[in-house]
Amino acid sequence: MKVKEIAEYINGEVSGNAELEIINVGKIETAGKNEITFISNPLYEKFFSETNAGAVLVSKTFKIKEIRNDLTVIKVQDPYLSFVSLLELFNKDETAEEYGISDTCVIGKDSKISETVFIDDFVKIGNGCKIGKDTRISAGSVIGKGVSLGNNCRIENNVVIYKNCILGNNVHIHSGTVIGSDGFGYAKQEDGIFKKILQKGIVVIEDDVEIGSNCTIDRATIGETRICRGVKMDNQIQIAHNVYVGEDTVIVAQVGISGTTKIGKRCMIGGQAGLVGHITICDDVIIGAAVGVSKSITKPGMYTGYRAKPFKEELRQEASIKYIEKLREELRNIINKKQ
Amino acid sequence: MKVKEIAEYINGEVSGNAELEIINVGKIETAGKNEITFISNPLYEKFFSETNAGAVLVSKTFKIKEIRNDLTVIKVQDPYLSFVSLLELFNKDETAEEYGISDTCVIGKDSKISETVFIDDFVKIGNGCKIGKDTRISAGSVIGKGVSLGNNCRIENNVVIYKNCILGNNVHIHSGTVIGSDGFGYAKQEDGIFKKILQKGIVVIEDDVEIGSNCTIDRATIGETRICRGVKMDNQIQIAHNVYVGEDTVIVAQVGISGTTKIGKRCMIGGQAGLVGHITICDDVIIGAAVGVSKSITKPGMYTGYRAKPFKEELRQEASIKYIEKLREELRNIINKKQ
Amino acid sequence: MKVKEIAEYINGEVSGNAELEIINVGKIETAGKNEITFISNPLYEKFFSETNAGAVLVSKTFKIKEIRNDLTVIKVQDPYLSFVSLLELFNKDETAEEYGISDTCVIGKDSKISETVFIDDFVKIGNGCKIGKDTRISAGSVIGKGVSLGNNCRIENNVVIYKNCILGNNVHIHSGTVIGSDGFGYAKQEDGIFKKILQKGIVVIEDDVEIGSNCTIDRATIGETRICRGVKMDNQIQIAHNVYVGEDTVIVAQVGISGTTKIGKRCMIGGQAGLVGHITICDDVIIGAAVGVSKSITKPGMYTGYRAKPFKEELRQEASIKYIEKLREELRNIINKKQ
Repeated sequence: MKVKEIAEYINGEVSGNAELEIINVGKIETAGKNEITFISNPLYEKFFSETNAGAVLVSKTFKIKEIRNDLTVIKVQDPYLSFVSLLELFNKDETAEEYGISDTCVIGKDSKISETVFIDDFVKIGNGCKIGKDTRISAGSVIGKGVSLGNNCRIENNVVIYKNCILGNNVHIHSGTVIGSDGFGYAKQEDGIFKKILQKGIVVIEDDVEIGSNCTIDRATIGETRICRGVKMDNQIQIAHNVYVGEDTVIVAQVGISGTTKIGKRCMIGGQAGLVGHITICDDVIIGAAVGVSKSITKPGMYTGYRAKPFKEELRQEASIKYIEKLREELRNIINKKQ
Repeated sequence: MKVKEIAEYINGEVSGNAELEIINVGKIETAGKNEITFISNPLYEKFFSETNAGAVLVSKTFKIKEIRNDLTVIKVQDPYLSFVSLLELFNKDETAEEYGISDTCVIGKDSKISETVFIDDFVKIGNGCKIGKDTRISAGSVIGKGVSLGNNCRIENNVVIYKNCILGNNVHIHSGTVIGSDGFGYAKQEDGIFKKILQKGIVVIEDDVEIGSNCTIDRATIGETRICRGVKMDNQIQIAHNVYVGEDTVIVAQVGISGTTKIGKRCMIGGQAGLVGHITICDDVIIGAAVGVSKSITKPGMYTGYRAKPFKEELRQEASIKYIEKLREELRNIINKKQ
Repeated sequence: MKVKEIAEYINGEVSGNAELEIINVGKIETAGKNEITFISNPLYEKFFSETNAGAVLVSKTFKIKEIRNDLTVIKVQDPYLSFVSLLELFNKDETAEEYGISDTCVIGKDSKISETVFIDDFVKIGNGCKIGKDTRISAGSVIGKGVSLGNNCRIENNVVIYKNCILGNNVHIHSGTVIGSDGFGYAKQEDGIFKKILQKGIVVIEDDVEIGSNCTIDRATIGETRICRGVKMDNQIQIAHNVYVGEDTVIVAQVGISGTTKIGKRCMIGGQAGLVGHITICDDVIIGAAVGVSKSITKPGMYTGYRAKPFKEELRQEASIKYIEKLREELRNIINKKQ
C-alpha cells in the first residue's frame, strides 16, 4: 500500500515520498524502511531523528525540527487513533473466520446454537444454552447450563461461565477467567461455625465488554452482578457478588471490588486498587493505582493514597511527612534555648 | 408455601396476613408481592416502607414505625440466618443429584472411585487416586496421581490438584483454582544462578473448607501446607508453601500469605492483605483490608494499616498526619516572633 | 545411604556415627532417626537440641554447644545448598520419564513435534507449532498456533499459550497460567467510547525461566514482551504488554508490572508490589513487598514504602510519624506558657 493511499484512508497530509510502499506498522524503535510508525507521546519525539521507519504519523501541531529525506511524514488529527486504524488495516486478512463445531466438544441438549459459530476442541456446553451468531469459543472452555451468549462474542481458552449467566453481544473474555462462581457469603452460627449462604443470582455482562485473563466475577446472592456496556477490564481482577460497574468504565489489573459496591460510568480504576463493599462511586471518578477506597465517592475527580483522598489533598499530606524531622529539630532548639 | 408455614419453619412470629402464599425469596429492593425478604443491616431499615415484597423477616427488637397492610412481618431471632434457611428451602428441588462418569473422562489405573460420584466431561484423574462418595468433579478439572478426595466434595470446572494432595470431606473448590503446585524456592549458587529446590511435600485440606476461584495453594517443600477444618477462602488468594491456616479462619479475596507462616483459629483476613513468611498469627485476629503484616501477632484484636498496627493506634497515627501543616505554621509563628 | 557416603557426596565433615543409614531428608521439627535435616537460618539453631533427626547439616562456622550421641553432624560450606542436593538425590527415581502423545490430544497440522515428548490428555496444539525434545505438556493445556517450545520444557495443567509466542529451553510453567493474551490497550474516541487496539506482538520467554500458577503475561502491542534467561516468577503475577524482565530477576507472588516497563538483571521484587508503566528499574534493585513504584529507579539498593523510597529514608520517615502527637503537645505547652 502506498503512502498516498494510507494518507487518504486516515485523512492525513503527506510531506515526503507519497509513492513509498508500506507493508506493515511498527514500533518507532524497531520499524524498518517499508513500515509506518507514529509519534503521539512527547517522550517519543526524540525518536523522530533516529527511527528507521519509512513513514511516521504525527499530529497536525507537531513541529518538525529536521527534514529527513528518508522519512515521509503524515500529519493527522490524532496519530494514535490513526495508527490503531492502520494496525487493523494491515492485519485484516488474518482475521478470516472459520465456522464449525469440533468433534471433541460436548454440547448439552436443548441448546440453541447459531449456525455461524466456531466451537473448538474440548469445549463443554451445558443444557439449555443459547449461543448467538459469529460467536467463537476456544478450546477448553466450559459454558454452564442455561447460559446465554450474544452475537459475535469471543470466549478464549479455559474460560468458565457458570450456569444461567447472560452475556450480550461483542463480549470478549480472555483465558482462565471465571464468570459466575459463588459469591463469598457465610452466616456465623451460634456455635461459631460459618454456614454457606446459597448464591442464587447470576452475572450479566452487557455489550462490548472486554475482560482480561484470570479474572473472577462472582454471581449475585440474589439478583445480579452487572458489568455494563463498554466496560474494559484488564487481567486478574476480582469482582464480588452484586457489584455493578457502570458503562465505559476501565479497570486495570489486579483490582478488587467487594460485594454490592456500585461503580459509576466512565470511571478509571488503577491497578491493584481495592474497594470495600456496599459503597457507591459516582460517574467520572479516577482512582489511582493501589488506592484503598473505604467510603463512597460523590464527586468526580482523582483520588489517591493508601486511604483514598482527593489527589491534591493526599499529595500535600504525603509531602508533609518529610517535615516532621525538621519540626522536631526546630522545636528542640526552641526548648533548649528557653532552659 | 404459606407465611404461617414459613413462620413455623423458622420459629417466627407473624404480624399480618399469615395465609399469604410465598413462592420465593428476594432482595428488599426488587422482591415482589409473593416473595419474602429480610432486614438485618440497619442501613436497610429505610426500605421497610418502600419494599414491594409480600413479607419481611425482621429481628425481635425491630421497631415497626408504620403498619403496612400489604406487608406481612415475621419476627425472628436472627433475620439473616432465617433468610439463609429460606434461600435453601426454596431452592431444594434444584440440587437433585445425578451420578455417573462421563465417557470423555480419563481415569488412571488403580484408582478407587466410589459408586456414587459424578465426574463430568474432559476430567483427567491420575493413577492411584481415591474419590469418596457423593463427590462431584466438573468438566475440565485435573486430579493428579495419588490424590485423595473425601466424601461429598465439589470440584468445579478447570480446577487442578497436583499429585498426592489430600482433601477431606465436604470440600468445595471453585473453578480455576490450583492446589499443590510447586512452592517458590530457589537457592542462590556461587555463580549467582538460582537453583530450584524440589518441592516434595503436599497440600492437606481438611473437612468443610470452601475455596474460591483462581486461588493458588502451593505444596510444601517437605511436609505439608495445611488448610484446617471450616476455613473459608474467597477468590484469587495465594497461599505459599508450608503455610498453616487454623480452623474457621476466613480469608477475603486477593490475600497473599508467604511461606511457613502460621495463622490461628477464627481469624479474619481482609481483602488484598499480605503476610510475610515465617510469622505466626494467634487465634481470633482480625486483619483489615490491604494490611501488610511483617511481624508475628500475639494478641487477639484488630490490626490495620500499610504496616499492621493495633487498630486504634494506627487510626490515631493516621489522623495525626493532617496536623503536620498546622504544626509547621505554628512553629513558624513562634520563630518569627522571637526574631 | 550411609552418612559417610552422603558426606562424601556433598563434601562435608562428619562428627558422630558415619555408618548411620539415611533413607530420606526431613524438616528439623519432624525428621526421624533415619532422616537427615539441616540448620541454615539462625532462628532454627534452637532445634539442634530438640530434633529427632539422625543427622543434621550445619555450616563450618556453626558452634555446637551440646554434643548429642544420637545426632550425627555434617559440616558443609552451605547447609542449605547441600540440603537441596540431597533432596534431589533422594528423589531421583521418581523423575523417571515416560514419553508419548495421548489419544485424546488434538495436534494441529504442520506441527513439528520431537519424538521424545510427553503430551497428556485433552491437550490442544494449534497448527504450525514446534515442540522440542523432552518437553512435557500436561492435561488440559492449550498451545496456540505457531507457538514454539524449546527442549526440556514443562507445561503443567490447564496452561494457555496464545499464538506465535516463543519459549526457550528448560522453561517450566505451572497450572492455570496464561501467556500471550491481549495487552490492555484502548484508544478513547471522540464519542468517549474506547476502541480496542489490536495486540499484534508476542511473548518471548528465554531459557531456564520458571513461572508459577495463575500468572498472566500479555503479548506486546507490537514487538515483544520478554522474560529473560533465569527469571523466576511465583504465582498470580501480572506482566503487561511490552514489559521486559532482565536475567535472573526473581518476582514474588501477586506482583503487577504495567506496560512497557523494563526491569534490570538480578532484581528481587517482593510480593504484591506494583510498578507503573513506562519506567526503568536498573540492575540489582530490591523492591520490598507491597511497594508501589511510580518512577524509574537508577541506583541499585533496596526500596520500600507505599510510594517506593530508598529503604533507610523510608524507614526514618515512617518512624517519624509517631512523633507528631508529641510535637503537638510540646508546641501547645510552649504556646500556653507564652500567653
